[in-house]
Amino acid sequence: MSEKQPRVMSGMRTTQSLHIGNYFGALKNWLELQKQYECFFGAMDWHAMTNAYKKPKEIDEYTKDIIADWIAWGLDPEKNVIFIQSMVPEHLELSMIFANLTPMGWLERVTTWKDAKEELQQSDAYNLGRFSYPVLQTADISIYQASLVPVGKDQVAHLEISREIVRRFNRLYKAKLPEPKPLLTETPLITGTDGRKMSKSYGNVLPLTAEPKKIEKLCKKMVTDPQRVTREDPGNPEVCPVYDFHKLYSTNEDLQWVMKGCTTAGIGCGDCKLKLAANINEKMADALAKKKDLLKDSRKLDSIIVEGSRRARTEAQKTLAYVREMMGFSDYSPWGDS
Amino acid sequence: MSEKQPRVMSGMRTTQSLHIGNYFGALKNWLELQKQYECFFGAMDWHAMTNAYKKPKEIDEYTKDIIADWIAWGLDPEKNVIFIQSMVPEHLELSMIFANLTPMGWLERVTTWKDAKEELQQSDAYNLGRFSYPVLQTADISIYQASLVPVGKDQVAHLEISREIVRRFNRLYKAKLPEPKPLLTETPLITGTDGRKMSKSYGNVLPLTAEPKKIEKLCKKMVTDPQRVTREDPGNPEVCPVYDFHKLYSTNEDLQWVMKGCTTAGIGCGDCKLKLAANINEKMADALAKKKDLLKDSRKLDSIIVEGSRRARTEAQKTLAYVREMMGFSDYSPWGDS
Repeated sequence: MSEKQPRVMSGMRTTQSLHIGNYFGALKNWLELQKQYECFFGAMDWHAMTNAYKKPKEIDEYTKDIIADWIAWGLDPEKNVIFIQSMVPEHLELSMIFANLTPMGWLERVTTWKDAKEELQQSDAYNLGRFSYPVLQTADISIYQASLVPVGKDQVAHLEISREIVRRFNRLYKAKLPEPKPLLTETPLITGTDGRKMSKSYGNVLPLTAEPKKIEKLCKKMVTDPQRVTREDPGNPEVCPVYDFHKLYSTNEDLQWVMKGCTTAGIGCGDCKLKLAANINEKMADALAKKKDLLKDSRKLDSIIVEGSRRARTEAQKTLAYVREMMGFSDYSPWGDS
Repeated sequence: MSEKQPRVMSGMRTTQSLHIGNYFGALKNWLELQKQYECFFGAMDWHAMTNAYKKPKEIDEYTKDIIADWIAWGLDPEKNVIFIQSMVPEHLELSMIFANLTPMGWLERVTTWKDAKEELQQSDAYNLGRFSYPVLQTADISIYQASLVPVGKDQVAHLEISREIVRRFNRLYKAKLPEPKPLLTETPLITGTDGRKMSKSYGNVLPLTAEPKKIEKLCKKMVTDPQRVTREDPGNPEVCPVYDFHKLYSTNEDLQWVMKGCTTAGIGCGDCKLKLAANINEKMADALAKKKDLLKDSRKLDSIIVEGSRRARTEAQKTLAYVREMMGFSDYSPWGDS
């Protein structure tokens, strides 16, 4: 692999199982990125801990579950470096170094901190871990010398503090860590089962991978066009959450079937939902089988995780050695004995 | 060594060579503590970096120099665990865990932060590293499950936040990390060569270990009783910084010689200073020889540091395994491959 090829770093916080919002907003992009770039994909359990620190056991389970989903849906653990953040402690060392050169003001001005203050206080997450999040995030990227970070249009600003920290590091120590640049990706708004934005906190998510029965059940409970009160009323798919899902999972033929059937009251909402469930389950079948297989044979998944994290550490240690050298900091390596 | 013996943890920030204020305020106590306790003594280079991050190279040199001083003055690297903080990355992992359960308010209320704000801003050290210092300090103690921390009377309050963090950890995860307790030690106020408190920032320090010529030169420049203007004026040792040093380094006989000679103008300030220099140099002779020897043979000092840090890591890894187990966090160990 050429040294010049830009590296991509991206991660997901492991606070929940993946839902289809995570797929269309992130994983789907990753599946494309892996074709073009050298990619580092991290299951970010330290970040998950910043507000889920009271239930680390759950984080652990989600971490495995999420990685199983990644692979089941087509992320290649050979081609990409797939790792768990807490298995690469070099993230924390670089974060410590960055913490010293990050003025408090930079962090206090971060929008996702400033604006979330009240919410964080209520959820007992107004803590140092959450506050220092952007510094660790910068280390997550720079420890792999990644120069590209996939983000949606509305998240470009979040990367600015990382760029500032890296620039300050480079200036202070005459170093050349790449300044992370946003790699603009599509992050469509995914509607939840109740018509609001899909979010775990709303309890309106459709899991990315689940048993067909469960998908069917969730589809049946979906909110529909509120104007269509009885089976005999014609409906309007354009305001119906079920139709939003059809657009993601169904063929043009099925879309026309819905459009025509709904607006003429030719089909009922139940018919429409069953068709949706069938289409989702069909697209999910391969991934579901693969995920179940991965979770059944935990040794195989474990060895993928351990091997990926080992590859990540090798790269992280190279970067840390470079960082220390540029700083003129310590001839001793704590890793000398590993 | 019995499991029940309480462990002592103490450290010094490696921002300067040791001066005699550091000796009488800390190292002298350590030399006593090593006789009674299982002790962990750390050269705290991460803490040094929080405000000296622009010159890590110097920190590196001070770190070695300080450890050489410790050993030269009698700290036993076999009996005690002597280590460099950055060589034991488990400090940062535990610090990350503690960061999540430390509310911002606890840190914002820390006196040494609140009151130093202006000074820190001027010195470009109003940064995340300095702000989060108390959390890392708590990890420094708890990673060795130390229960005793030597502090002076006026520093007892500084330990309170560490006790709070450990209590919160224990409560959340039903764990039993020892709550660090202050071990009250004498920390006499050491006067500098100009009569003010000895401090590197005042440029009035007397190095703990230095060539005799240098000590002589520094003694000659010392401020004396300002009322004694000429050789013929009698002086008052009780207001003379030189006499303060005599009290630390001279025999009763010499003290009487000074008292009598000064108050009767029987001796001049020059005589008094030369006597002081001679006494300091005599008490320093062995340590100076030993320190020079240690710094000359860098392989020997290196191997002491590497071996001590390895012993520290072994204990730190045990604690981290316990911490993760109590939290139910991650069956994976990043150290599995070391």
